[in-house]
Amino acid sequence: MTQKSNPNPTAALVEVAKIIEIELDTCIKKCNLPQHLEEAASYAVVNGGKRVRPALTLLCSEAVGGTLDQAMPSAIAVELIHCFSLVHDDLPAIDNDALRRGKPTLHVKSGEAMAILAGDLLLPVAFSQLICEQYSHEQQARLTKLLATATSDMVVGQVYDTIGGLPEHLDALQQLEEIHRNKTGALIRSACQMGAVCGNATPEEFEAISTFGSATGLMFQIVDDLIDLHGSAELVGKATGKDEEAGKTTYPGTIGVEASKLAVKDLQKQAETAISSLNGDAETLSSFNVWMAQRTR
Amino acid sequence: MTQKSNPNPTAALVEVAKIIEIELDTCIKKCNLPQHLEEAASYAVVNGGKRVRPALTLLCSEAVGGTLDQAMPSAIAVELIHCFSLVHDDLPAIDNDALRRGKPTLHVKSGEAMAILAGDLLLPVAFSQLICEQYSHEQQARLTKLLATATSDMVVGQVYDTIGGLPEHLDALQQLEEIHRNKTGALIRSACQMGAVCGNATPEEFEAISTFGSATGLMFQIVDDLIDLHGSAELVGKATGKDEEAGKTTYPGTIGVEASKLAVKDLQKQAETAISSLNGDAETLSSFNVWMAQRTR
Repeated sequence: MTQKSNPNPTAALVEVAKIIEIELDTCIKKCNLPQHLEEAASYAVVNGGKRVRPALTLLCSEAVGGTLDQAMPSAIAVELIHCFSLVHDDLPAIDNDALRRGKPTLHVKSGEAMAILAGDLLLPVAFSQLICEQYSHEQQARLTKLLATATSDMVVGQVYDTIGGLPEHLDALQQLEEIHRNKTGALIRSACQMGAVCGNATPEEFEAISTFGSATGLMFQIVDDLIDLHGSAELVGKATGKDEEAGKTTYPGTIGVEASKLAVKDLQKQAETAISSLNGDAETLSSFNVWMAQRTR
Repeated sequence: MTQKSNPNPTAALVEVAKIIEIELDTCIKKCNLPQHLEEAASYAVVNGGKRVRPALTLLCSEAVGGTLDQAMPSAIAVELIHCFSLVHDDLPAIDNDALRRGKPTLHVKSGEAMAILAGDLLLPVAFSQLICEQYSHEQQARLTKLLATATSDMVVGQVYDTIGGLPEHLDALQQLEEIHRNKTGALIRSACQMGAVCGNATPEEFEAISTFGSATGLMFQIVDDLIDLHGSAELVGKATGKDEEAGKTTYPGTIGVEASKLAVKDLQKQAETAISSLNGDAETLSSFNVWMAQRTR
């Protein structure tokens, strides 16, 4: 997509993030919302995020021979779900975060009622995106199912992370994986799978992208944990060392920093292998995968 | 559906409500949730509600020649969205209700974090219901769009009702209608329209059901306002006169009790006329409509 003019995956990501940001803005404006709700929804979605998930949707579509246009509504839907989860996770009753990406969280800015309701709004708006002329009815159904399942899983992950209730027969590492497979992994994997559906992947390609998505999703979380430990507030736009302070179990905390770094390397290779024989242009996806692993350092 | 053995619409409704309750319970159990989340979700949906919306979905399907089986997944989806909205509306930051149908609200019982997250969960579970073998891919797409639009509208209505921001050029009655067309009307109308889609309605039948749904939706709210004013806490299972206490604008408060009763009568007739020439069995739907109007008295 942007790879020819932008061989540097970070530059490509910045470019993709800009396009996504514009599309998200347009999407919210098209909803014809009351002004204060539109402002709150825009604040929640037009937030300068990295747009990792929608980028994966676009790049996975491209990797199986699809186009950016085909994948865009799904990319937007995925990011809307991600933004909804951020708004609700930040609420006082859940993670009680006052700052996100260096700015006040939505409930701090617009009040708790508006944050709950604007978050709620993003969910149906996300599902609406999928019912569009870019997709056949069959694609719409598959995309809806994938997004719905990932969203439920994400809520389960957040419940485990915030309230607890993990199966007791699991050991510490298994419990950690159970949290993150749901909380972060499910939506990242679905973002990839939805890209594959957008690009009319064969069943084999869909499987390959699913394997890629699972590996990338877990890798993303381990990298996030490592950044939380070593990053600076400036770099990540929120307080660092917060996981430790909050007593949250993390990969470095559970298996150690070195083992976490090795796991990232291993998962990156797994992801790379999975997409090595795809029929479309997987070069940007591959570079992106490398970038996602390297952002630890 | 139940009309032959149950000519009394109240008895028919009780019977439908029982079936819906069982289906909702099954639906949540099939999600394979962690136990505490399953308990919270079940508490939110298996709640002895009247099940007006899913009953409308089932009866509207029947009215255009469809079957109960065809309409059931949509009926469940609609009720899940309704239950989600109740859980979030009851939250301390929004309506701050401690009691619903005579029982503690979910956030009182299970904490605010669980109430937010269990509410969130019901949304994707609702959309998941629509992607099932009972429907063609085209029906799935239409149903998803109808449910998504109604859910967004409902959130807009709740924002108007709780936070304000109504267009200032509207007069008091128009503002009230703007709240309720969104907050209550949209989901009731979609419940009806989704029933029509399930029953493979012709475009003309779909239009007739839409007209029925709009009239019924508004009527439902006026009746609710009248019940709030004259009902007893025992009858409605929550504190009455609460609207007045909360300074909420209501139909009786805006146009008077007698004009509200006349409006109910008029809307009931409009709804009746709309469905008078449908091809399926609209008799139970018609009785149900009469019951919905009469429950004021």
